[in-house]
Amino acid sequence: MAITIALDAMGGDYGPQVVVPAALSVLLEIKDVTLILVGDHKSIYDLVIANKGVLNERLVIQHASQKVEMDELPSQALRSKKDSSMRVAINLIKSGKADACVSAGNTGALMATARFVLKTLPGIDRPAIVSTLPTVLGHCYVLDLGANVDSSAENLYQFALMGSVLASAIDNVPNPRVGLLNIGTELIKGNDQIKKAGQMLARSRLNYIGFVEGDDIYKGNTDVVVCDGFVGNVALKSSEGVARLVKHFLKESFNSNLLTKLMGFLTLPVLNKFRKKMDPRRYNGANLIGLNGVVIKSHGGADIMAFAHAIHIAIIETQKDVPKHISTHLEPWLTEGQVN
Amino acid sequence: MAITIALDAMGGDYGPQVVVPAALSVLLEIKDVTLILVGDHKSIYDLVIANKGVLNERLVIQHASQKVEMDELPSQALRSKKDSSMRVAINLIKSGKADACVSAGNTGALMATARFVLKTLPGIDRPAIVSTLPTVLGHCYVLDLGANVDSSAENLYQFALMGSVLASAIDNVPNPRVGLLNIGTELIKGNDQIKKAGQMLARSRLNYIGFVEGDDIYKGNTDVVVCDGFVGNVALKSSEGVARLVKHFLKESFNSNLLTKLMGFLTLPVLNKFRKKMDPRRYNGANLIGLNGVVIKSHGGADIMAFAHAIHIAIIETQKDVPKHISTHLEPWLTEGQVN
Repeated sequence: MAITIALDAMGGDYGPQVVVPAALSVLLEIKDVTLILVGDHKSIYDLVIANKGVLNERLVIQHASQKVEMDELPSQALRSKKDSSMRVAINLIKSGKADACVSAGNTGALMATARFVLKTLPGIDRPAIVSTLPTVLGHCYVLDLGANVDSSAENLYQFALMGSVLASAIDNVPNPRVGLLNIGTELIKGNDQIKKAGQMLARSRLNYIGFVEGDDIYKGNTDVVVCDGFVGNVALKSSEGVARLVKHFLKESFNSNLLTKLMGFLTLPVLNKFRKKMDPRRYNGANLIGLNGVVIKSHGGADIMAFAHAIHIAIIETQKDVPKHISTHLEPWLTEGQVN
Repeated sequence: MAITIALDAMGGDYGPQVVVPAALSVLLEIKDVTLILVGDHKSIYDLVIANKGVLNERLVIQHASQKVEMDELPSQALRSKKDSSMRVAINLIKSGKADACVSAGNTGALMATARFVLKTLPGIDRPAIVSTLPTVLGHCYVLDLGANVDSSAENLYQFALMGSVLASAIDNVPNPRVGLLNIGTELIKGNDQIKKAGQMLARSRLNYIGFVEGDDIYKGNTDVVVCDGFVGNVALKSSEGVARLVKHFLKESFNSNLLTKLMGFLTLPVLNKFRKKMDPRRYNGANLIGLNGVVIKSHGGADIMAFAHAIHIAIIETQKDVPKHISTHLEPWLTEGQVN
């Protein structure tokens, strides 16, 4: 199956400087894929040449005259950036010329544009941002990571359904364990939305395991963790903060004197193996799920390796046809969990 | 200044097994403090003797016939456990026989009971749970960590005021930097409560630095991070989860073969120093702030060292007279940030 992925070449902190070499590295690894670099033709062309790449049927440039800024308001981008690299890349999915798109650009604008152009799947009110996070045993899908604040019980229920279908399609888990993120059982057990969503999930056909807490994300005891976007975003960023703090303390401990520095040098292979396990680039590429099409959001500060990883995710999700899985699985399920 | 602290000896996963030896260790370190062990007289007495302790004017037992279970509903505990170790310990503050109390018991019940017996300070609608978290440069106060869900803008504003007074009183920071926890600036910038609280804080006399994200908690760029209790609890638990995951991966990396095991052994002093930095026991003891009295919540699973740390926090907060600081600072401030 030949796959075509549109890449927003101007998005992210580094734009084509990262996107072009990442695209070239993916083309070396995967044969039956075509990549469309969308953005300023000259900048992209120069970088393709500088990186010893060749334009052919597998690597194409699609010119776009505008660029969405990282701090631009989504509504502004939607209204006045109709020829942005982001918008053109998403249009390529709509017109059937691409199967998926990857962007490291402004998340709010990407979500608004993708929703406007592609529309949500039947039965889905709001798309969500979903990504995998590492666990003791592998990984876990967490959604929503920041697309929606003040999610209703119905939204949370839809996130759970989409997450379950995704985990099942991508990882071949037959019956993914779904947990609803809540606060400690000995505390006030969540707000009304959480309680109602819990009731809906308990009645559904999903493998709902009940409330989970923040630390359960990393324990490997659940395949999908469902939460409101505000909460999910804070959980994600806090986790990144702790991981960075740990790295800082570890470095500080090894750097305290000559002897400990020597020890650090000797244990470098072990520490590198550890670093690789914790490398956030290995988890780059969040899915904007719930749309008529595969849209992958890369971290804005992604480097070449990280952006290439996001392209790989787009390829896998296209191969597995995640949106179709969601629509076919969703329709009969969407009504059954409703609480009157 | 002689200080008296009431200890809920029956609370937590280990009850007097942890509380009694922790109390004895604190008495060895600090001279002018009296500790009242509240709970079942016989169990406590036997453990004092077994741990080679002596009952005297500095170590007293106050019998209480009941115990609040860890999974008991707060309303239930409030109604039917009027002679619980927790309730009696809090009553000792109310009657002036103790300056503060420490409990590792059921958080919801502790909050409900403390609020019922001690009442909130004038101008404070809801107490909050506040604790320090480690940063690159020291620590940061984060509140609320789980006492309140669905906090209003006014609640968040009051949390900010209390956190600022606390950081100022305990750490002698003249003008603590206060940040409001929000989601990525490139995303939808928070919900209505956050936006309104941000406006109120911008108009206040506090050193408000604006919105911060989850990873800012650990960066050392803010002294106080303010958030809703649901969000704060998830951030805290997620952070604990990541820290545990890192420990797991590090152990795994060093245990992979004989050579790496040897390296792990050689670098033990460095790794131990690192572990000490990350040791959650060094951060045990959360403050139930906003009450007429100092109430410290220890982690339910706290060991002797961790519980002793919570007692130390109670002593420091009593010495600094945090509740009084809050009331004197708060009254003129509470109205000025109101947005009509």
